[in-house]
Amino acid sequence: MAALPSAANSVTVRLVAPARATAVSELTGVVEQAGGVVTGLDVTASGHERVRVDVTLMTRDPGHADEIVELMRGVEGVEIGKVSDRTFLMHLGGKLRIESKVPIRNRDDLSLIYTPGVARVCMAIAENPEDARRLTIKRNTVAVVTDGTAVLGLGDIGPLAAMPVMEGKAALFKRFADIDAFPICLDTTDTEEIITAVKAISPVFAGINLEDISAPRCFEIEARLREELDIPVFHDDQHGTAIVALAAMRNALAVVGKRLEDVKLVMSGAGAAGTAILKLMLHAGARHVVVADMHGVIHAAREDVVSGDHPNQTWIAEHTNAEGFTGTLAEALAGADVFLGVSAPNILTGDDIATMADDAVVFAMANPTPEVDPVDAAKHATVVATGRSDFPNQINNVLVFPGVFRGLLDSGSHVLTPEVLLAAADALAGVVKDEERNATYIIPSVFHPGVAEVVAAAVAKTATSTGAATAGSAEAAKAP
Amino acid sequence: MAALPSAANSVTVRLVAPARATAVSELTGVVEQAGGVVTGLDVTASGHERVRVDVTLMTRDPGHADEIVELMRGVEGVEIGKVSDRTFLMHLGGKLRIESKVPIRNRDDLSLIYTPGVARVCMAIAENPEDARRLTIKRNTVAVVTDGTAVLGLGDIGPLAAMPVMEGKAALFKRFADIDAFPICLDTTDTEEIITAVKAISPVFAGINLEDISAPRCFEIEARLREELDIPVFHDDQHGTAIVALAAMRNALAVVGKRLEDVKLVMSGAGAAGTAILKLMLHAGARHVVVADMHGVIHAAREDVVSGDHPNQTWIAEHTNAEGFTGTLAEALAGADVFLGVSAPNILTGDDIATMADDAVVFAMANPTPEVDPVDAAKHATVVATGRSDFPNQINNVLVFPGVFRGLLDSGSHVLTPEVLLAAADALAGVVKDEERNATYIIPSVFHPGVAEVVAAAVAKTATSTGAATAGSAEAAKAP
Repeated sequence: MAALPSAANSVTVRLVAPARATAVSELTGVVEQAGGVVTGLDVTASGHERVRVDVTLMTRDPGHADEIVELMRGVEGVEIGKVSDRTFLMHLGGKLRIESKVPIRNRDDLSLIYTPGVARVCMAIAENPEDARRLTIKRNTVAVVTDGTAVLGLGDIGPLAAMPVMEGKAALFKRFADIDAFPICLDTTDTEEIITAVKAISPVFAGINLEDISAPRCFEIEARLREELDIPVFHDDQHGTAIVALAAMRNALAVVGKRLEDVKLVMSGAGAAGTAILKLMLHAGARHVVVADMHGVIHAAREDVVSGDHPNQTWIAEHTNAEGFTGTLAEALAGADVFLGVSAPNILTGDDIATMADDAVVFAMANPTPEVDPVDAAKHATVVATGRSDFPNQINNVLVFPGVFRGLLDSGSHVLTPEVLLAAADALAGVVKDEERNATYIIPSVFHPGVAEVVAAAVAKTATSTGAATAGSAEAAKAP
Repeated sequence: MAALPSAANSVTVRLVAPARATAVSELTGVVEQAGGVVTGLDVTASGHERVRVDVTLMTRDPGHADEIVELMRGVEGVEIGKVSDRTFLMHLGGKLRIESKVPIRNRDDLSLIYTPGVARVCMAIAENPEDARRLTIKRNTVAVVTDGTAVLGLGDIGPLAAMPVMEGKAALFKRFADIDAFPICLDTTDTEEIITAVKAISPVFAGINLEDISAPRCFEIEARLREELDIPVFHDDQHGTAIVALAAMRNALAVVGKRLEDVKLVMSGAGAAGTAILKLMLHAGARHVVVADMHGVIHAAREDVVSGDHPNQTWIAEHTNAEGFTGTLAEALAGADVFLGVSAPNILTGDDIATMADDAVVFAMANPTPEVDPVDAAKHATVVATGRSDFPNQINNVLVFPGVFRGLLDSGSHVLTPEVLLAAADALAGVVKDEERNATYIIPSVFHPGVAEVVAAAVAKTATSTGAATAGSAEAAKAP
């Protein structure tokens, strides 16, 4: 799976070339021979003898871009100027801005939105705190909280370096669900300090989206915040991933005509995502599950389980692997109906997948490189899904978090319940109609219209009917 | 000083009236007789017999509005419908929104601003943290931080009820200086927890604006954050008020032809604002200052100063009142050139002002009711200033904080120095030209064009020349 040229690795090369017909075609030829893809040619200045051209091209990676630029420099008469990286250009000055919704043109405006008029609004909220959801930004505002310890596949890069991801997340909240999200990148990795800080800032927000906080701290932080706050706490790495995985699994099993209750499900990964997926699968009815981590299949007699030092492993041992299977992941796979990985790249081969039951389902979700090459897996499994955008069936959290929060905010939810997670997954699965569903289409694409709305409606309905939302909150959010 | 009808107390009354010429004029007559002011009449539906009209009117306060509506109900044939409070209407859903600066139209866009492209931007910042000011929202983003303990004149109303003020402040940051400001309303009044939380969230911000935190905690919070953060910490109640007061004082003294170094200055108020004004006045050259608090003039022999339990009072005693004057505020005023109050309403009379020196200057800045009735004060003083918008010479922090932060951000400042405060005050004073300056115009109005720009330029220049800004930060904020 060699990387292909992508927009994420686009550069724009400003150059001056001789004004002869062949010069530009030589340049594009050089780019294409070197494996780049020209996506734009803009003449920005022209004279009788020479033209200035901005050539935009997709490359495989920054090294590939450098290599192509050097080849372009070799074309006769060409002078290379500034080379701009399109990804960096998009990030200049950051990706968010805060706007005032109200005009401030004169003293009258000022007296309405600031002193003295604002004092009456403050007093109304002091007398009835629920009014904050009506008279402030709270009702539509979500905190995207990270400590920068487990960012994408990059690991512990710290809060500053995590900002572009959190800003991107906030931009996606806006794009897909019209939610005002703000990045809270915390300069501490201390569990207690994180809890203190998030509790302290919570009045402004109607929901907390935890993001890219490393395990096992993320479990305690989430559990404590859930207990101590009166707004829902969603850890996207856990809950978002679990919802989208279950939605896709529902459709994958429908394609192969199997039931979640009956299948033998082998999972790889017992971190934040793996544990959350496991819990939601069990909640949805899965009964025959075996989970492996880097030390092999987790079972009740394993040393780290017996020691009690790893509460997560102990929990898993108590709720899976009733038969007490001991062995490797590959050994566990023999005869399994489903493999679901959220672990590490290239830990399985096509031969391993070949040992699974007929009509096997493989979700190899490690990013950016799956647990097994999806092309190899597809030779032996009926349905294959990954986290990658360049294969069918991309398991992508962007399908989930905007709609879930939209539903939580619309219903004025104070908590996040397993019923809500399940409702979100089923609503997302239902976006794929029976007549559309097949082995290469078990989950809608990120830009499929209306996904967030469908998920939001299911979440709001379930939150309200299960009492997770305050009675009257939805009403309170409306005009007076 | 009876309250006048104001836009801050506007209501819109939806009503149905008979379609006769006199009905509407009867209605407006009723409003005006009762002391209201009609500012809008919109026919929203009309028939042969009846019209539906939205009447918008300014009132003195909510009780006055109720009274007028009842009188309108008495007009023959009129049916009163919904009565909307314009201030509350402006606040529905809050006053801020967060927008994405980048388009997210398709997968290519997604791959640039989110995974996988964003990873390269994260790594660039991980390698060179200063790049965060170039590639994230940090460079233009300020936190407006409060715990809701000293909001306007309302006191300790808590973080939720403080939100409308902080949102308004953020809206003003945008309006006057194109700064992205976000409200951080803290659900704790514990000094250590506040410090922990603000330090934790600091990576996202290039500056901290503390707001409406009660004294004496605000002093320690500010001092500690200033020490422990690498971004400037500005407490608007202290520094903003001090800057605008000094700017207005420069011009007031120019009007009466006196020098700050020579005048006898009597202050009332030793809280956050009073202490900060005192310090800046001393830094600017004042030498003959006496400060009174609610227990009278502060002097070295006073019990609370001797006890050492009140470090603020001790500091004041050590730096003012060299002659050891003991007595009341009113007694101290005899022969004084300047009175400056940031304390409590109606603590002085015109007769007290009459005891001051010739060409006296009175800044009675208590809000909403000044220390002395400005009309009475003006009978005995040459220059009178207040915090009120309905008298000349309004001392308003809105003139200061947008420009100060614009300058701090533009210069990439890491600290806030007394030199910067002084430069901001002098720049603001200079907005009033020599030929414009007179006893009723010592400070520009809030909407005077270009104020923030002038202040910002002075702040950026001083920050850079005094080393408060990192060399190269301004450069780093520009395009690559």
